[in-house]
Amino acid sequence: MSDLETSAKPTMPLQGQLARVTEMLRRHHLVEDLTHRQTGAHQDVVENLIHRQHLVELQREIDELHPADVARILEALPPEDRLSVWHLVKADRDGEILLEVSDAVRESLLADMDAPEILAAAEQLDADELADLAEDLPDDVVDQLMQRLDAPEREQLRAAMSWEDDQVGAIMDFEMVTIREDVTLEVVLRYLRRLKELPEQTDKLFVVNHDHVLTGVLPLEWLLVNDPAREVADVMAADANTFHPGEDVFETAQAFERYDLVSAPVVDAEGKLIGRLTIDSMVDVIREEGDAEALSRAGLREDEDIFASVWRSLRNRWTWLAINLVTAFVASRVIGLFEGSIEKLVALAALMPIVAGIGGNSGNQTITMIVRALALGQVSPEGAKRLLRKEVAVALLNGLIWGGVIGLVAWALYGNPALGLVMTVAMTLNLLLAAMMGVAIPMTLTYFDRDPAMGASVMITAITDSGGFFIFLGLASIFLI
Amino acid sequence: MSDLETSAKPTMPLQGQLARVTEMLRRHHLVEDLTHRQTGAHQDVVENLIHRQHLVELQREIDELHPADVARILEALPPEDRLSVWHLVKADRDGEILLEVSDAVRESLLADMDAPEILAAAEQLDADELADLAEDLPDDVVDQLMQRLDAPEREQLRAAMSWEDDQVGAIMDFEMVTIREDVTLEVVLRYLRRLKELPEQTDKLFVVNHDHVLTGVLPLEWLLVNDPAREVADVMAADANTFHPGEDVFETAQAFERYDLVSAPVVDAEGKLIGRLTIDSMVDVIREEGDAEALSRAGLREDEDIFASVWRSLRNRWTWLAINLVTAFVASRVIGLFEGSIEKLVALAALMPIVAGIGGNSGNQTITMIVRALALGQVSPEGAKRLLRKEVAVALLNGLIWGGVIGLVAWALYGNPALGLVMTVAMTLNLLLAAMMGVAIPMTLTYFDRDPAMGASVMITAITDSGGFFIFLGLASIFLI
Repeated sequence: MSDLETSAKPTMPLQGQLARVTEMLRRHHLVEDLTHRQTGAHQDVVENLIHRQHLVELQREIDELHPADVARILEALPPEDRLSVWHLVKADRDGEILLEVSDAVRESLLADMDAPEILAAAEQLDADELADLAEDLPDDVVDQLMQRLDAPEREQLRAAMSWEDDQVGAIMDFEMVTIREDVTLEVVLRYLRRLKELPEQTDKLFVVNHDHVLTGVLPLEWLLVNDPAREVADVMAADANTFHPGEDVFETAQAFERYDLVSAPVVDAEGKLIGRLTIDSMVDVIREEGDAEALSRAGLREDEDIFASVWRSLRNRWTWLAINLVTAFVASRVIGLFEGSIEKLVALAALMPIVAGIGGNSGNQTITMIVRALALGQVSPEGAKRLLRKEVAVALLNGLIWGGVIGLVAWALYGNPALGLVMTVAMTLNLLLAAMMGVAIPMTLTYFDRDPAMGASVMITAITDSGGFFIFLGLASIFLI
Repeated sequence: MSDLETSAKPTMPLQGQLARVTEMLRRHHLVEDLTHRQTGAHQDVVENLIHRQHLVELQREIDELHPADVARILEALPPEDRLSVWHLVKADRDGEILLEVSDAVRESLLADMDAPEILAAAEQLDADELADLAEDLPDDVVDQLMQRLDAPEREQLRAAMSWEDDQVGAIMDFEMVTIREDVTLEVVLRYLRRLKELPEQTDKLFVVNHDHVLTGVLPLEWLLVNDPAREVADVMAADANTFHPGEDVFETAQAFERYDLVSAPVVDAEGKLIGRLTIDSMVDVIREEGDAEALSRAGLREDEDIFASVWRSLRNRWTWLAINLVTAFVASRVIGLFEGSIEKLVALAALMPIVAGIGGNSGNQTITMIVRALALGQVSPEGAKRLLRKEVAVALLNGLIWGGVIGLVAWALYGNPALGLVMTVAMTLNLLLAAMMGVAIPMTLTYFDRDPAMGASVMITAITDSGGFFIFLGLASIFLI
């Protein structure tokens, strides 16, 4: 049981860890406040001692935490507390923690470090990890880094940096254990014992020939359950899942999900083994994919450090606000066309946002469905036609049912049956417009190789707003005025 | 190289596989059409042969595919094609594939199977997998299933079914390899060889004492690199990450991400080993979390089979449409309050949607940020106050800048400087309202232990719509009319 109790720390919920660190920081600040207020020389020395004691305690706490946990705590602290804690982190853990924090927080930490500190942190990292960090570093620091690496590592770093962020080449690592196929498992077992340590997330060894071409993989499991006298070639899987460095990471992550992979080899066009992918980086990809969708849906350009300055937040958000302003202005001009009608029948002004709003909501439902289906590769050209028919049918029914209800309410409210009828017809037409555009927008974006989710929500809302106002006010002008 | 070429199939993109199956189905339908048209007896026999030949070819294709790929293809096919392909799947693969398909598609497949078929499919599965399936099965089939299991399996199935979907107990499996700590690694190696096969995703063995209490874990890696003469107790990690069956799966998935775990033991309150978690089910959890957020944001109750009937789609979507209808109606009544003012100054009708729209967009940006920060556990009570201050500052600046621009445009357009000023002030106030509610809504939902994302977007839009109309028309009525 005592063994189990020691396990409490690593699985301690983040909130608990954060609360402890915040409490320690608070006490530390209290002491600082005291020191500032009472300036007697003797007093100073005592307070300084208490102050230092708190810091030592906090440092001990931080040293015991997993780098990923320290990263989460740094992300959750306001800038000045964040830097206080960051200064307490031992230099040899800086690198690992920099890899774990979000892009925005990494920038704020790097901004606080000078070149020698950054170089010291970078020295703890592998070439593939350096590649992740390099884009945030000043050019001269990257140059110095390059010079400190040995030739193969430098080559790996260059290779990793040459791929786009969304390509397999950018997230592969180089920590592969390779074996030959013409040896026995016994030889492999002895070889591994000499290695003393395997790279993290090693669930299989890679079998290569003399030209370093991958000929198969040997899962550790098979190495363990088979007779050690057997040959590798005899036991290994020749038809492993392999990936190429230019492949899309999101599709690769889907393959990891589908085939429940833990690691997989990356080969070049000639089949030579050049790297390795692991499930932990794929999990990051899957998480980022979801996050990016949520962010772009809300019109945020990028991940935001929640304690970012007001200025940075403004910059991050203004693009979409500006686009939204333009679409809102267009909708406003559409209403402007019918000002004469509104003057005569002011009920139109009160009812028009309903037509526009329901259209937007329904269009967003359709677009969410289609974007998901496209992302999962579920839409064939055959399927597209069916989908459009289905969405149109759903829209038609929704329009008649809900449009009918609202039409009755409008009739009751304004005592004008014709107004109710126009309301029902306008809602039905706007829902049909929403359904058709909800299918067409993501399909078109996909056809032109664009991300179907990006901005789709803003576009559909713009169309259903302007379209809804135009349809409703137009019908009203023809039949009611 | 020839080995590598055989690897083309498993990593073949889904679109390619889907295209092949669809093409085969199309040819199959063509033959069917022909058979229907030409009814000569001889003709029939020939066509029947061709028909059967196509099916055999298609069946061969499907047999070669990974169950996960068959599942994706089934999801992407319209109902009648889906069932044609499903009938071609060999009975002994039914179980695996049922586990892989989405909930909606699983229902459609199960609806097509009779009790004996379902029982046959279920026989291929482990207790934890059965638990996933059981909730979709008729009660009498579940009873029959229970009777066919042996006592420990029945117990496992009952245990797994007793937990909520979002608890660790519901997604753990029971395929653990356990060892004692007082034996040498050599003994463990011999034991594994006798097992012939290890459970999938086994990266560590679980060390238990005579009471089945977990005392540590032995990563396969350490088993491989250490001297076989050493004892397990000497090599194992005593402070492993352990989980409890009642824990939340989303937090557990975050722990897997943070600590790069592949598998982890589940223990009960006494520390007894009762199950195992693996990264593949955690990846599903992470994916589902993102999907659920996207769906609930768009107001969809649940995942929808894209080929679901119109009726099912209506049911899935109507809840949120109805809510939206109510909020839109409230906004409409707010406008109704000011009909007198609009009659006198019809420009108000054209300008009011801009105030409401920008507020909604900005509020959604704020809410997205806060929901993410809450999900990542980044918000302490201390941090909450800072966040509110920051969001208010951003809103104030956005209101003055963009509200100023729109105010100038309104002035130019309607030649009324007072109208422009009211527009600027109303936009600023509505953006402030959006910022405050954008922070308050998710915080309040979290305080009451509700999902902060659920419906947050609908709520903020409702507030910024009604609020925006009220502020703008109210100010206009006071100062302009």
